[in-house]
Amino acid sequence: MTPSPTKQFTKNILERKVGQKPGFLNVHEHSLPPRLFMVSFDGDLYESREFENYDSLMAAFVSQPQARHWIDVRGYQNLELMERLMLDFQIHALQMEDVINDYQRPKVEEDGNRLFIISRMVTFTEEHEIDDDQISLFTGPNYVLTLQSDYEDCLNPLRERIRAGKGSIRKKSSIYLAYAILDVVLDHYFPAMAQLGEYAEELEDCLFENPSKKLLSQILDLKREVVKIRRIIWPERDKINEILRMDEAQIPHDLRIYFKDIYDHAVQLIDLVDNYRETTSSLTDLYLSNVSNRMNEVMKVLTIISTIFIPLSFIVGLYGMNFSREQPDGEINPLNMPELYHPYGYVTLLGFMGLVVVGMVYYFYRKGWLN
Amino acid sequence: MTPSPTKQFTKNILERKVGQKPGFLNVHEHSLPPRLFMVSFDGDLYESREFENYDSLMAAFVSQPQARHWIDVRGYQNLELMERLMLDFQIHALQMEDVINDYQRPKVEEDGNRLFIISRMVTFTEEHEIDDDQISLFTGPNYVLTLQSDYEDCLNPLRERIRAGKGSIRKKSSIYLAYAILDVVLDHYFPAMAQLGEYAEELEDCLFENPSKKLLSQILDLKREVVKIRRIIWPERDKINEILRMDEAQIPHDLRIYFKDIYDHAVQLIDLVDNYRETTSSLTDLYLSNVSNRMNEVMKVLTIISTIFIPLSFIVGLYGMNFSREQPDGEINPLNMPELYHPYGYVTLLGFMGLVVVGMVYYFYRKGWLN
Amino acid sequence: MTPSPTKQFTKNILERKVGQKPGFLNVHEHSLPPRLFMVSFDGDLYESREFENYDSLMAAFVSQPQARHWIDVRGYQNLELMERLMLDFQIHALQMEDVINDYQRPKVEEDGNRLFIISRMVTFTEEHEIDDDQISLFTGPNYVLTLQSDYEDCLNPLRERIRAGKGSIRKKSSIYLAYAILDVVLDHYFPAMAQLGEYAEELEDCLFENPSKKLLSQILDLKREVVKIRRIIWPERDKINEILRMDEAQIPHDLRIYFKDIYDHAVQLIDLVDNYRETTSSLTDLYLSNVSNRMNEVMKVLTIISTIFIPLSFIVGLYGMNFSREQPDGEINPLNMPELYHPYGYVTLLGFMGLVVVGMVYYFYRKGWLN
Amino acid sequence: MTPSPTKQFTKNILERKVGQKPGFLNVHEHSLPPRLFMVSFDGDLYESREFENYDSLMAAFVSQPQARHWIDVRGYQNLELMERLMLDFQIHALQMEDVINDYQRPKVEEDGNRLFIISRMVTFTEEHEIDDDQISLFTGPNYVLTLQSDYEDCLNPLRERIRAGKGSIRKKSSIYLAYAILDVVLDHYFPAMAQLGEYAEELEDCLFENPSKKLLSQILDLKREVVKIRRIIWPERDKINEILRMDEAQIPHDLRIYFKDIYDHAVQLIDLVDNYRETTSSLTDLYLSNVSNRMNEVMKVLTIISTIFIPLSFIVGLYGMNFSREQPDGEINPLNMPELYHPYGYVTLLGFMGLVVVGMVYYFYRKGWLN
Amino acid sequence: MTPSPTKQFTKNILERKVGQKPGFLNVHEHSLPPRLFMVSFDGDLYESREFENYDSLMAAFVSQPQARHWIDVRGYQNLELMERLMLDFQIHALQMEDVINDYQRPKVEEDGNRLFIISRMVTFTEEHEIDDDQISLFTGPNYVLTLQSDYEDCLNPLRERIRAGKGSIRKKSSIYLAYAILDVVLDHYFPAMAQLGEYAEELEDCLFENPSKKLLSQILDLKREVVKIRRIIWPERDKINEILRMDEAQIPHDLRIYFKDIYDHAVQLIDLVDNYRETTSSLTDLYLSNVSNRMNEVMKVLTIISTIFIPLSFIVGLYGMNFSREQPDGEINPLNMPELYHPYGYVTLLGFMGLVVVGMVYYFYRKGWLN
Ligand SMILES: [Mg+2]
Ligand SMILES: [Mg+2]
Ligand SMILES: [Mg+2]
Ligand SMILES: [Mg+2]
Ligand SMILES: [Mg+2]
Ligand SMILES: [Mg+2]
Ligand SMILES: [Mg+2]
Ligand SMILES: [Mg+2]
Ligand SMILES: [Mg+2]
Ligand SMILES: [Mg+2]
Ligand SMILES: [Mg+2]
Ligand SMILES: [Mg+2]
Ligand SMILES: [Mg+2]
Ligand SMILES: [Mg+2]
Ligand SMILES: [Mg+2]
Ligand SMILES: [Mg+2]
Ligand SMILES: [Mg+2]
Ligand SMILES: [Mg+2]
Ligand SMILES: [Mg+2]
Ligand SMILES: [Mg+2]
Ligand SMILES: [Mg+2]
Ligand SMILES: [Mg+2]
Ligand SMILES: [Mg+2]
Ligand SMILES: [Mg+2]
Ligand SMILES: [Mg+2]
Ligand SMILES: [Mg+2]
Ligand SMILES: [Mg+2]
Ligand SMILES: [Mg+2]
Ligand SMILES: [Mg+2]
Ligand SMILES: [Mg+2]
Ligand SMILES: [Mg+2]
Repeated sequence: MTPSPTKQFTKNILERKVGQKPGFLNVHEHSLPPRLFMVSFDGDLYESREFENYDSLMAAFVSQPQARHWIDVRGYQNLELMERLMLDFQIHALQMEDVINDYQRPKVEEDGNRLFIISRMVTFTEEHEIDDDQISLFTGPNYVLTLQSDYEDCLNPLRERIRAGKGSIRKKSSIYLAYAILDVVLDHYFPAMAQLGEYAEELEDCLFENPSKKLLSQILDLKREVVKIRRIIWPERDKINEILRMDEAQIPHDLRIYFKDIYDHAVQLIDLVDNYRETTSSLTDLYLSNVSNRMNEVMKVLTIISTIFIPLSFIVGLYGMNFSREQPDGEINPLNMPELYHPYGYVTLLGFMGLVVVGMVYYFYRKGWLN
Repeated sequence: MTPSPTKQFTKNILERKVGQKPGFLNVHEHSLPPRLFMVSFDGDLYESREFENYDSLMAAFVSQPQARHWIDVRGYQNLELMERLMLDFQIHALQMEDVINDYQRPKVEEDGNRLFIISRMVTFTEEHEIDDDQISLFTGPNYVLTLQSDYEDCLNPLRERIRAGKGSIRKKSSIYLAYAILDVVLDHYFPAMAQLGEYAEELEDCLFENPSKKLLSQILDLKREVVKIRRIIWPERDKINEILRMDEAQIPHDLRIYFKDIYDHAVQLIDLVDNYRETTSSLTDLYLSNVSNRMNEVMKVLTIISTIFIPLSFIVGLYGMNFSREQPDGEINPLNMPELYHPYGYVTLLGFMGLVVVGMVYYFYRKGWLN
Repeated sequence: MTPSPTKQFTKNILERKVGQKPGFLNVHEHSLPPRLFMVSFDGDLYESREFENYDSLMAAFVSQPQARHWIDVRGYQNLELMERLMLDFQIHALQMEDVINDYQRPKVEEDGNRLFIISRMVTFTEEHEIDDDQISLFTGPNYVLTLQSDYEDCLNPLRERIRAGKGSIRKKSSIYLAYAILDVVLDHYFPAMAQLGEYAEELEDCLFENPSKKLLSQILDLKREVVKIRRIIWPERDKINEILRMDEAQIPHDLRIYFKDIYDHAVQLIDLVDNYRETTSSLTDLYLSNVSNRMNEVMKVLTIISTIFIPLSFIVGLYGMNFSREQPDGEINPLNMPELYHPYGYVTLLGFMGLVVVGMVYYFYRKGWLN
Repeated sequence: MTPSPTKQFTKNILERKVGQKPGFLNVHEHSLPPRLFMVSFDGDLYESREFENYDSLMAAFVSQPQARHWIDVRGYQNLELMERLMLDFQIHALQMEDVINDYQRPKVEEDGNRLFIISRMVTFTEEHEIDDDQISLFTGPNYVLTLQSDYEDCLNPLRERIRAGKGSIRKKSSIYLAYAILDVVLDHYFPAMAQLGEYAEELEDCLFENPSKKLLSQILDLKREVVKIRRIIWPERDKINEILRMDEAQIPHDLRIYFKDIYDHAVQLIDLVDNYRETTSSLTDLYLSNVSNRMNEVMKVLTIISTIFIPLSFIVGLYGMNFSREQPDGEINPLNMPELYHPYGYVTLLGFMGLVVVGMVYYFYRKGWLN
Repeated sequence: MTPSPTKQFTKNILERKVGQKPGFLNVHEHSLPPRLFMVSFDGDLYESREFENYDSLMAAFVSQPQARHWIDVRGYQNLELMERLMLDFQIHALQMEDVINDYQRPKVEEDGNRLFIISRMVTFTEEHEIDDDQISLFTGPNYVLTLQSDYEDCLNPLRERIRAGKGSIRKKSSIYLAYAILDVVLDHYFPAMAQLGEYAEELEDCLFENPSKKLLSQILDLKREVVKIRRIIWPERDKINEILRMDEAQIPHDLRIYFKDIYDHAVQLIDLVDNYRETTSSLTDLYLSNVSNRMNEVMKVLTIISTIFIPLSFIVGLYGMNFSREQPDGEINPLNMPELYHPYGYVTLLGFMGLVVVGMVYYFYRKGWLN
């Protein structure tokens, strides 16, 4: 069984060395060796390449100063590469630390006209947990540099759009490319949210069909996932809002509407996640109410059975008493249980007990306990 | 059974293609073929027409530049039409995407002196759910362009007012027409809220009369609807507030009071929805308390019956014992259950047991368990 | 039984016609025919009159331009009168709509130097509900115009003060008169709050003395009333705050302290209502805990009785068995229940059962179940 | 039994006459006759006197214009004195109303360079309630005037400091004296909070030792006291914050750090009170859980006893049946209860029932019900 | 058993003397005698010394005006030393009071270009409690002065970095040193949080394995610790935010990014603590649900056993009745319990009772009560 994300996170924090110098690049053992990609394009040009080494990438990069370039570094296991990136792209050590630590909430920083943006790519896993990977993005006059810890990401539709030359992306500036990346990343929140919603409905169905003991635990775990994604989306929204408040130098006027659009999407995601919060709260309430209802049902069965048979048992016990018709001296005690000697005593009693049962059943029926 | 709105929404999200270029117009298969309406009017003029095709509509539109026009497009299943609208009315691709996606929270965007407004038209359905349809609205110097996905809407009272020339609507600017549309849309929230309130009272009556197992589920579903409409009304209010903060160029000074009026209505709706939130919370509490009370009642019946009969059963069991008056060797054991041989043994015991019953009933009466 | 306010409100909303032109004056059938009052005063002058018709009122009004006038219209069932008021006192149609609809949350609007203020007069009814009536107020250079739907209001102490010439009210401006009205209206919230508080204490006493099944329902209803008055007081406070932020032209500097004073009162009311919110929450918790405690008590009685008698019943059942001392062939089975033939068998058993009872009672005493 | 503070407060409100002219001085019957104190000091001078009448106080006051004076009026039962104070110290009637009404939340008002400050002195009473008395304070160029309803207050340590000439207080301005009063008043919140905290721990101990029925009621009462003190401390903090935002004319720059210091204390008190809120919530949860646990324990005893003896009772009942070995006609029924005639029938059955008991006890032990 | 932190805190408050002059230095009896450390460095220089007395420290300090110095005073038990520090480093009495009282929430104060910063160093103790020690920090042109009550702190990694000359710390200004201290202090929150998280998971495991009665108490205690650390981290964040809003004179532009970095960490800590809050809430819910589930299980066992055996007991009781086949006069009552004389009466009854048991078990199986 894999550790829960909380456990994993706890482990990561414990491994982290405290008191390091600021900007210390703590390359994790289990991080991947870097792969270097670059997509270069302008209106006419389109080249998508993976490079063997950083030098060849840089050579290609500087040889086409008029084109836009999307440099994409995946995997951090090469401290030297990271330091060369910092040098060549004027990345501050603290920013590179944020990139490599791989657990930074979404944010944007501006430095002159350049932006440093961190986004989180979200998926809803098979284990019903929100998994979020970090993508770090630096903009420059004619490039966007992205860094991620995994080889796989959610950006292939965008790569395909650049290749196909669809839309105006090939003709637009590097900041538009940055926007396009943020847009695709945020777009992928929707299917994750939809899967989470489907899982919530699965749990709701369970609740009414065969509620297991683990169900509450699962509902509360889901609640925590909802809270978790909420804590990712809010800073995502704040980040885009901060971009919208930047001035012309960072965000040209005609691109503003694009960021406004992803802002709308972020707000819609917040609405959605609040919806799920309400849903999981409802599920908790329903679960607890179901527990009470089941106890109620158990109690009713017990009460019906007991209430019917306890008086009957008394009656049969009554006629099981050994009061003697005769005293030891042979004298007759006519008052001692004469019923026992009546020819119709037994059948009368059976009939009486039948009436008692009918009366009680009617009483329970009137109380509505029999449905 | 139709899927719940949440399920429907989840389905929509899953169908949505992620990573599309911004402004991609995703015309849904199940969307309706567009119908084109235009109402043209000024102080004297009044014409209300449906057009066969877009060209004839545009011809009519440009031929009366001095009049105001309300162009009303219903149904989106024609990509080419949408693109011509974008071109002729300078609509940004991202705005048209918002229109067609049909799930955008209420908002306003200004672009020069033009406004782009999205509202949601709300109804409370037979299935006790909030159904909300989107109406998108663009203003221009002498026109208002509205787009909606359905053929039916809630604006007929307004159309009738224009036709009848009631009020000053025929003499006022296009921004006043936009206001009038927003006003009528918001007016329709009130009956929806009233129906929701009536349903809440139905559920409350159920609670006291015959609470079914499904009741809590229904209450919690209603709670979710209340939360849902809350999330629609708040941005509605924010939208109007944003309009109120616009300057003279967008909202002339003498129209400000009209928008202030619908702002008041939006705030009143928020009060109302908070009222319903409180009501549904109360219902949940009452339901859970009812469950406890019913269990209490069951327990009391069980306890009364058991407490009365268990001691009696002991007593009759006592006198059902077979302690022998004679030892096997014929010697007498006078201490072995002499009661059994007493001439009044049986009736004394019956009387004693009667007293026990009376005592217990009195005890329960004093405890207040008998009412 | 009168409908609950929520029901009444729902009904009102359903009756309201949606889609009306803005400023449509919807005179309710059941509204009262207007009565026209005017109090005219300055340092020396004091006249308080009811007028037969609007013309005579206006004649009196214009004949004393140097005095201050409080024109008080009660009852709205005269559309023509309302329209003449709009004309003579420059009231916007939307404002008159707010007046007549009679369900507008407290607010203030400024129009030049004139104020339009809506307040709500609150009482706590016999049915333990917050009843709030609207008073609408327009200020002018030498007059205050108030409109209310009922003939009765809470302003008589103020009328008496003007008549008696107490305080400086006769010497002050019309805006001071407006303040005085707002002050008296807000003063009346305190006794309403006190009655609500007394009712809360009544319910609390019930809780400990004879909690009925309806009690939780009553507590939750009270909670809703508390929430309702909270939603009235907050905008009341906001309204006064807005007045305080107006400039010299609307609120002369020396009057500012008076509005600050009623602001303090509004804040004090908010403190009070939050206090009651906490109280009603406590009551809910106490009620639910009482239900649990009662169930606990029932369970304890059941358990004590059962635990004492069930083992005893077993014992007497044991000696009610018919194991035979003799085999059918007459052979003796000395091991079959020899106790039954022992001369002290019965009394020994009675003694033993007495010990069992004492032991159990002691056990329950130690558990603390007997107090 | 003294009425609870809420009851007292409700009574006060009901007694208050509504609709009075603003600034009406409602001297309560039960208020104390005023006592007049003045401490006069500068670097050298120190005089602390109680005056017989207001004239002698004023004579002393005006005779030392170069010194600082702390005039301290305790008890309000003299309307004429109050009016003379208003005249001599330019106190607005509304401010004097706030003083005398004795129930004003903490606030500060500035009027030119003068401050009017209301603070509340808090104690935690023997009855476990927050008792708060009002102290009203006016600053002037060379004096501070305080008014309180009681003869006793918490300011003696400050009086002693002035007498002893400790610190720089004798050399500083009247605004510093005002600060020193506020500081001592706020300092006294800490022991009140500590006592409240000790009481909370007492209740927690009760919870685990001998939880009475009244305990929840006490916990919820404490919760309300916590909420009450919270509503006193927050405006206290806001008041100091407002003072900090005043400009040089009111608060000289070198005194700002002193007010910042009491601001820190107010924030610390807020932290503390939030801590207690959390504590009382925990207590409520623990109480309710204890109730459930006790019910669980009762149920377990019942279930263990019943589960052990009910089957045994069946068995002994079985062998109490009277199936006859002989038919009436003397024919033998060998299948009718031959066990009863077996020489080891009884002991075998006793052994079997012993095994059943052992098995069940083991089962309960495994379930963990026996600890 | 050591007192709980809350108890300790309550005790501290009670000991604190109220009404002291502002800036009164209340040296606690149990505070440690001061030890004096100084680290002096610049690009080349590195000296780390402990001084016997304050004079030798000051001599060393003034002899190297071109270097940066970190003066570190640990232990406060020397009033004279504290007063000399105030004099030599221009520390206000109120600031020194904050230092020595040792219970000040995180804050920053600026005084000219100098900063006074209070941070709290957090650990999670063996007793599962948040322990926080205060570190107070004053910056000057070429020094940082820190004061702490204990000899041990969490700053050794930083001291080692200065010694090793790692990073640029030796070349940077004193404000950078202040940053570095804050950074290391905040870094240590992460392992404390991780330990808290591990403890939360321990409790969760307990919940599912062997929930003790104390468990809820432990969960609620943990909840309180989470609330406590939350109240430490929020002002920590606010403090850093306030530093970020200072101008160039306090925080040079190139250092701003460093403070931004620790701001990010503070926000991440807030996310983390909110995560734990959600977790502890889940644990409470799970605990309470487990209590209900256990009660349910108890009830089911009771109900199954009772429901099976109570009817059987009735049946065997029925055939234990003594209805007589013969009347006293010898006449035969053929209807009185003829079953008893039937040759297969007993075995038939045993079979019938077996069927009843099978039927009931099947019923319980269908209800799902047997798993
Ligand atoms: Mg760092
Ligand atoms: Mg990853
Ligand atoms: Mg991954
Ligand atoms: Mg998108
Ligand atoms: Mg879990
Ligand atoms: Mg959009
Ligand atoms: Mg898109
Ligand atoms: Mg639709
Ligand atoms: Mg529709
Ligand atoms: Mg309207
Ligand atoms: Mg549902
Ligand atoms: Mg209106
Ligand atoms: Mg009315
Ligand atoms: Mg009325
Ligand atoms: Mg008032
Ligand atoms: Mg009701
Ligand atoms: Mg006042
Ligand atoms: Mg709850
Ligand atoms: Mg008043
Ligand atoms: Mg008092
Ligand atoms: Mg007192
Ligand atoms: Mg202080
Ligand atoms: Mg009470
Ligand atoms: Mg301080
Ligand atoms: Mg102090
Ligand atoms: Mg310490
Ligand atoms: Mg320590
Ligand atoms: Mg750090
Ligand atoms: Mg504890
Ligand atoms: Mg960082
Ligand atoms: Mg039973």
